[in-house]
Amino acid sequence: MTRAYETIALQLEHRTIREFTNEPVPKETMDTLLQIAQRTATSNGMQSYSIIRVTDPQLKEAIARVGNQAYIAREPELLIFIVDSYRNGRIALEKGYKGEAHRDMDRFFQGWTDACLAAQNVVLAAESLGLGANYLGCILNDTAKMIELLKLPELTFPVVGVGLGYPNQTPQLKPRMDMSLRVFENSYSMIDDYLTAISEYDKEMQTYYDLRNANKRVDCFSDQVVSKLVNVIPGRQDILNVIKSQGFDLMIK
Amino acid sequence: MTRAYETIALQLEHRTIREFTNEPVPKETMDTLLQIAQRTATSNGMQSYSIIRVTDPQLKEAIARVGNQAYIAREPELLIFIVDSYRNGRIALEKGYKGEAHRDMDRFFQGWTDACLAAQNVVLAAESLGLGANYLGCILNDTAKMIELLKLPELTFPVVGVGLGYPNQTPQLKPRMDMSLRVFENSYSMIDDYLTAISEYDKEMQTYYDLRNANKRVDCFSDQVVSKLVNVIPGRQDILNVIKSQGFDLMIK
Repeated sequence: MTRAYETIALQLEHRTIREFTNEPVPKETMDTLLQIAQRTATSNGMQSYSIIRVTDPQLKEAIARVGNQAYIAREPELLIFIVDSYRNGRIALEKGYKGEAHRDMDRFFQGWTDACLAAQNVVLAAESLGLGANYLGCILNDTAKMIELLKLPELTFPVVGVGLGYPNQTPQLKPRMDMSLRVFENSYSMIDDYLTAISEYDKEMQTYYDLRNANKRVDCFSDQVVSKLVNVIPGRQDILNVIKSQGFDLMIK
Repeated sequence: MTRAYETIALQLEHRTIREFTNEPVPKETMDTLLQIAQRTATSNGMQSYSIIRVTDPQLKEAIARVGNQAYIAREPELLIFIVDSYRNGRIALEKGYKGEAHRDMDRFFQGWTDACLAAQNVVLAAESLGLGANYLGCILNDTAKMIELLKLPELTFPVVGVGLGYPNQTPQLKPRMDMSLRVFENSYSMIDDYLTAISEYDKEMQTYYDLRNANKRVDCFSDQVVSKLVNVIPGRQDILNVIKSQGFDLMIK
């Protein structure tokens, strides 16, 4: 039973780490993390995602510009998880397959799910070894640029980045919305007045200090929701057009 | 350091469990798993996914028909992870937000990623407590039907199901493709001859016995890739049209 509580304790302690010491991540540790990715559950057993390990400092800087986050250039380790329907498409082609189903959106979403499951398993494994991690959804700010930078062939697509290293900061645990608002039994339940339902959470969020702006309190959650919606990033809204340009068939009616 | 190896050992031991004992999952265990979901990393802190816990036996049977997998009706616990941009859209509306960005595909993909990260964390937490788990990508066979069954409002969408219980089978560890074919440094590397590159893996896969068909060997991996592509499920290819009908703006040019 000790094992049980240790894994769960790790999961409950998760916080984003964005600043790291200069200590490099040992090769054996990276090998272990990639083995964890390999063993993660995968849709239909198809393993339709890949990982680009970014070691080139100039490439890290270019990705930091896409994500508009300077700390990306300083990540001791940087893994970009990608949808990969190219590999299985090629395997099928070499087997004589003549169809086009490897281009469909079902394959795309399988790859996206696979990439996310593997990323989460790698992050937790890293944390279990004393590393800290940050997720980089911001690589989606300009997916066309990411495709160019990583020389991604057709039928591949960037999903999420993961930065890893030995932590050089100790952030607070970030408050989260109560699960009573997020877990429903048998069918979805709507609420008449969301602002009243999250009022305690709104207050709690204002007690949290984000280390990115250590000198000021963060907005309450409902204000954060609005500010994220107001500050639209056009490149992110455009994602399906880039997916299409990578050779996927959107099959829109 | 003991903690480290215990989490990783769990991750390396992962296998899909589809048959369970009659022992119910205790309420405290389910509460812990939902707390793990709550603490999982989430895009932009927006928590744009929700969970439907399915307890109604008739609803489980209906989902088993969508997924075309009889064992779904027997899952001791069944969680459906969904994209949820409805909740934050309502919060923004109550705050006076007049825009439509909560309908964009950026929000959709953030929710999909959030749902997958939480699902993986829940699965590992469950395994750490002695439970077994299966992922149900097959709920995507007919997403329109899933939306109807779970009464999902606009701006929500099913992503993946997770079945949980105490294992009543001990499957073999499933062979996986070598990571040298799946991890690249700085840029994607194509291979001239994929069938040669995976020939050892193809052989290894034939030594694996799938418990769903315990009396026969499975196909080699490359044959599995082709058979999955040949056996297209039209409802799955149609996914973007259902996403659109849920009120998301695809923004296709």
